Amino acid sequence: MRLPKTATEEEVLHSITEVNENSSVHGLIVQLPLDSIHKINTEKVTNAVAPEKDVDGLTSINAGRLSRGDLGDCFIPCTPNGCMDAKRFLQTHQPGKWSISYTKLNLQMPVPSDIVISRSCVPKPIDRMAREVGLLSDEVELYGKTKAKVQLSIIKRLKSQPDGKYVVVTGITPTPLGEGKSTTTIGLVQALGAHMKLNVFACVRQPSQGPTFGIKGGAAGGGYSQVIPMEEFNLHLTGDIHAITAANNLVAAAIDARMFHEATQSDKALYNRLVPLSAGQRKFSPIQINRLKKLGIDKTDPSALTEDEITRFARLDIDPSSVTWQRVLDTNDRFLRRITIGQAPTEKGYTREAQFDITVASEIMAVLALTSSLEDMRERLAKMVVATSRGGQPITTEDLGVSGALTVLMRDAIKPNLMQTLEGTPVFVHAGPFANIAHGNSSILADKIALKLVGPEGFVVTEAGFGADIGMEKFFNIKCRYSGLRPHVVVLVATVRALKMHGGGPTVTAGMPLPKEYVEELCISSFPSCRADTEAELDLVCRMAKAAGAFDAVRCSHWAEGGAGAVNLGLAVQRACEAPSDFQFLYDLDIPIADKIRIIAQKIYGADDIELLPEAKHKVELYTKQGFGHLPICMAKTHLSLSHEADKKGVPSGFVLPIRDIRASVGAGFLFPLVGTMPTIPGLPTRPCFYDIDLDPETEQVNGLF
Amino acid sequence: MRLPKTATEEEVLHSITEVNENSSVHGLIVQLPLDSIHKINTEKVTNAVAPEKDVDGLTSINAGRLSRGDLGDCFIPCTPNGCMDAKRFLQTHQPGKWSISYTKLNLQMPVPSDIVISRSCVPKPIDRMAREVGLLSDEVELYGKTKAKVQLSIIKRLKSQPDGKYVVVTGITPTPLGEGKSTTTIGLVQALGAHMKLNVFACVRQPSQGPTFGIKGGAAGGGYSQVIPMEEFNLHLTGDIHAITAANNLVAAAIDARMFHEATQSDKALYNRLVPLSAGQRKFSPIQINRLKKLGIDKTDPSALTEDEITRFARLDIDPSSVTWQRVLDTNDRFLRRITIGQAPTEKGYTREAQFDITVASEIMAVLALTSSLEDMRERLAKMVVATSRGGQPITTEDLGVSGALTVLMRDAIKPNLMQTLEGTPVFVHAGPFANIAHGNSSILADKIALKLVGPEGFVVTEAGFGADIGMEKFFNIKCRYSGLRPHVVVLVATVRALKMHGGGPTVTAGMPLPKEYVEELCISSFPSCRADTEAELDLVCRMAKAAGAFDAVRCSHWAEGGAGAVNLGLAVQRACEAPSDFQFLYDLDIPIADKIRIIAQKIYGADDIELLPEAKHKVELYTKQGFGHLPICMAKTHLSLSHEADKKGVPSGFVLPIRDIRASVGAGFLFPLVGTMPTIPGLPTRPCFYDIDLDPETEQVNGLF
Repeated sequence: MRLPKTATEEEVLHSITEVNENSSVHGLIVQLPLDSIHKINTEKVTNAVAPEKDVDGLTSINAGRLSRGDLGDCFIPCTPNGCMDAKRFLQTHQPGKWSISYTKLNLQMPVPSDIVISRSCVPKPIDRMAREVGLLSDEVELYGKTKAKVQLSIIKRLKSQPDGKYVVVTGITPTPLGEGKSTTTIGLVQALGAHMKLNVFACVRQPSQGPTFGIKGGAAGGGYSQVIPMEEFNLHLTGDIHAITAANNLVAAAIDARMFHEATQSDKALYNRLVPLSAGQRKFSPIQINRLKKLGIDKTDPSALTEDEITRFARLDIDPSSVTWQRVLDTNDRFLRRITIGQAPTEKGYTREAQFDITVASEIMAVLALTSSLEDMRERLAKMVVATSRGGQPITTEDLGVSGALTVLMRDAIKPNLMQTLEGTPVFVHAGPFANIAHGNSSILADKIALKLVGPEGFVVTEAGFGADIGMEKFFNIKCRYSGLRPHVVVLVATVRALKMHGGGPTVTAGMPLPKEYVEELCISSFPSCRADTEAELDLVCRMAKAAGAFDAVRCSHWAEGGAGAVNLGLAVQRACEAPSDFQFLYDLDIPIADKIRIIAQKIYGADDIELLPEAKHKVELYTKQGFGHLPICMAKTHLSLSHEADKKGVPSGFVLPIRDIRASVGAGFLFPLVGTMPTIPGLPTRPCFYDIDLDPETEQVNGLF
Repeated sequence: MRLPKTATEEEVLHSITEVNENSSVHGLIVQLPLDSIHKINTEKVTNAVAPEKDVDGLTSINAGRLSRGDLGDCFIPCTPNGCMDAKRFLQTHQPGKWSISYTKLNLQMPVPSDIVISRSCVPKPIDRMAREVGLLSDEVELYGKTKAKVQLSIIKRLKSQPDGKYVVVTGITPTPLGEGKSTTTIGLVQALGAHMKLNVFACVRQPSQGPTFGIKGGAAGGGYSQVIPMEEFNLHLTGDIHAITAANNLVAAAIDARMFHEATQSDKALYNRLVPLSAGQRKFSPIQINRLKKLGIDKTDPSALTEDEITRFARLDIDPSSVTWQRVLDTNDRFLRRITIGQAPTEKGYTREAQFDITVASEIMAVLALTSSLEDMRERLAKMVVATSRGGQPITTEDLGVSGALTVLMRDAIKPNLMQTLEGTPVFVHAGPFANIAHGNSSILADKIALKLVGPEGFVVTEAGFGADIGMEKFFNIKCRYSGLRPHVVVLVATVRALKMHGGGPTVTAGMPLPKEYVEELCISSFPSCRADTEAELDLVCRMAKAAGAFDAVRCSHWAEGGAGAVNLGLAVQRACEAPSDFQFLYDLDIPIADKIRIIAQKIYGADDIELLPEAKHKVELYTKQGFGHLPICMAKTHLSLSHEADKKGVPSGFVLPIRDIRASVGAGFLFPLVGTMPTIPGLPTRPCFYDIDLDPETEQVNGLF
């Protein structure tokens, strides 16, 4: 559609006719070079434009200067959002290398605090970033100036576009402080994008807001490798986690209300209320029809049900002791770890013990991360099992009638969130399932959309939560299994700090001052990306890594230097992508549950065997009987050791992994064996981070978040 | 800045020079009429534009057709967001009547369901709506295509602009179904705007999401008087209520965690943790300095405190039985009405009874509604009293160290949300405090911004929750007191249905089929806005209203006809605005607490007297002693009767109003006497609305919400 400067009047007119027939073009600016003004009849050109082409856009036929030379020489179609979208329009019709502007870093030494660096970079308007990576304006929903949601329809539009290279970043067994996976992920994309000029997307998890005000503070990478603006990244974002809180707690309220109403009403009264007479008619809602089908009742007329069918339909008969669905909050509220609910007189004595988890531990978060479409999410949200009936049947959210409402509450959350790095490369922030009792990886949808947008020559760098034994194993065997995607390269981040601790150094505790053995090694070193610890230490690590079979081992300094400090890593990743790979799942889904757990324990953790405790044995039987035996396994194990004991550092051996219990996330699609007790809602220390956090009412700047 | 078609080259060049000096203009399009092309040297004009004027905008000097004639004849400055903003730019520099496009209704008879009507209207892109009402693009943060947040800086920019007319809509004592205040509010602005072509804003409350999935379903007005899109209005909106949930529960977690840490640590250990050694230094955070000041300790060096001062600083010594701060969720979860928390072994037996309220009952929601600036919100959030110390001192969020974090969590929520009516007039949706235990009115900030935007000839129609005895009384004596604004007109909505019930008809219960006496009167009739019940009934109502002293009484049919059906009401409102008024507060703030309560009970409710029960008497003493006696009163009373007994209809007399207890919302700025027991979190019925709610994965349409 781009016309040469020498285009004749006829050529211009022909192109306009083409545009007239393109319904996605709402308006255009025909920009004729000044020197063409006497060769081309402007009025004729003007009149060639179909009258409907300016309904909401801005149609203009001009001769003169159009300052942004890159807008094209001759004419630019406009969409309803204005003519700046024109540039974007041209790009999407020229798949290939992005025309993207990078943000130049002004590196300081010593490296300032994260917040000082974050504030020193002005983010590009996010609508511009969206256009630069080839998004159509209809596919983008702005949330302020620095965040946007992108629509899933992109996958369909770019269906025929081959995927880019898929790179996953993981780490060695960490210290409790984390060892820079996020920082390396961001540093690497800054290198591949701003320095190597390749199309590249980072896909990262949304952080939980609870810990931000507790011990952890904000995080979005660190140093000169960050997602900006940090405040937006750490607070609310576009409300996805809040939507999960709302959806999760609607299920919880529905469970207890249903048990209460069933306990206090006859079958007939229940049925009459569930299928009420309205305007002289009784009708099942579609969700109720689904339940009837599940029960094998092939009727749609409410008056046709037999008494037995009425009872089966109306009474879920939930065993209160079997409820596995917990309430959630995105707050570090330790006093909600175990509570008794239903103590008001209105609940007539139907009290029970319950608990709150942190929102990111909700199965709905795991569903969000593993779903592949709106329809698939609707299905997953419907088959989540919340309890067992007294007769041993799994009770789902669909049985409760709440599945549609959950989908409605999650309809915006399913769209990935677009942000950017310090150097102006694009980032998707989407989903952040708890890495303990869920799989700890960002969303499949963000990865899939990014792989389409970067195109076959581009790269998508996604991060797997926790260490390789947890995050990477689950990335391979759960996320890749559901997505159908296969990684081209794994980047394993190591730090001298973590290597030291696992080699026998003193214990590191989050929120406590670092023992001096570590303070002296301030920087992070990564492997194959290694960063400035002592020279000798780093050389040794790199040498040993390569000797152990790593494709390459590279020192990095992206924390101090941004993308420039990770160019060697970028080059190594690029080379590794070309190398052949033979990706295989660790286990087949069809083998027995216990065997799957054993394979993970032996091959990944180095255990001699597993031991199923009585409750776990019972669950193996129950889930096999209920038809959930084919699901992949998501181990709920400490990330601080390869074994089940957090203080066993290095590579422990000669241990038997005890499986205390097994739970099912049927909607998300995995079973999670509990190895020991997992804390599912953190607490606040005596002096939480919030003591330092404040807003300057003049500048509206957030202070103390980092 | 608009140049006539006949402008000479010199005039054009002069105007460009002016624009060059305006730093808020980032680019421009000079659009020369085709016939001027030979009179004006385009290149000269082009060169006159300062080179920095196209940094992010789109500078272009053209001769030719610019299809949107209303964009101006000669040139349009551009801002970084593209040249469509140009139109808006011109408008803001031409204060006065808006150039706004209305949406034409296609009225159907019989009136279709709310959702069918809502879907039949395509909302204008919200950025266009923003421009139409004179907002600068820097003042608008888009949230998708149909919602936007607007910045508070508008108030400062338009400081010298006189306010518009201020109209409040309230109702008679309602039935439990509500009687159409929102519908009348929307119908009235549609009439004033789309039909009478006046600048007009509606300011309404954000609905609580909990009841949307319970009994109530969605609501955004009704019939042909609605805010659109309904789904966006009813679900999440821009996350303000979610932000309140997060902020409220951070306070709750901080209270219990603090009591726990104080109970398990010595004064010295507490102090060492609260003011830790970090990089060899101990430092108070600014929030801790505030606490020191409150305690009268004028020191900033942590090592300078005496042992007694350390104890006073570090130990809040909260009396667990005095905690008035509750956790909240925006979910109808009846089983959280009374709970026992802290039962996990990690909390070492420090259990206590607590409760959850619905989020809109949080004091933070009341703060949001009553605040006048970011700085004021910071102050209000800091002085919220959450408990009393064992020594009788009020304990605030500032004492807990959490006030700054609350402000940070609420920094986006403070910005009003822009949406639109079915007929394309602007609406602010902002704040929705519980009308039982809070004041039930939308935000002061939305009203203030709207009053500036409509200008002196325009109208702002705001809604006061519940009936006149609750919503309007609180609007006058709390909201107007804090805002300094004075209403020009009160529109009192009456329905024949409510008048009948208060005249002795059968009881109406939300969620139950309507007794047939009411079903036959489907439409709502309002007073002074009255709508189609039987002719005779409506005539009678209007006649009696005028006889009773109403300025006017008008029948309305906006539910069935949109704005066209409320033009008579609009004319009456316009006339009433011209009439003199003598607004006076009902009581002085300086009189004793009990006297203020008595005045409301006698003058508004018609009570003979009040009776303070023992707990209320105790609180009168406590709050007077603590210095909160000067606050206005926010009665927590049933809205279903003028008295304290919901079943006393009509105008009851000869009763004494019992005051069971009094609570304080010190941050929001009122005391709330409890008349009877107020439910603070609703429950789910046997068949909640969610049974009908679902998402069509193909069209992404929400079904069953209404």
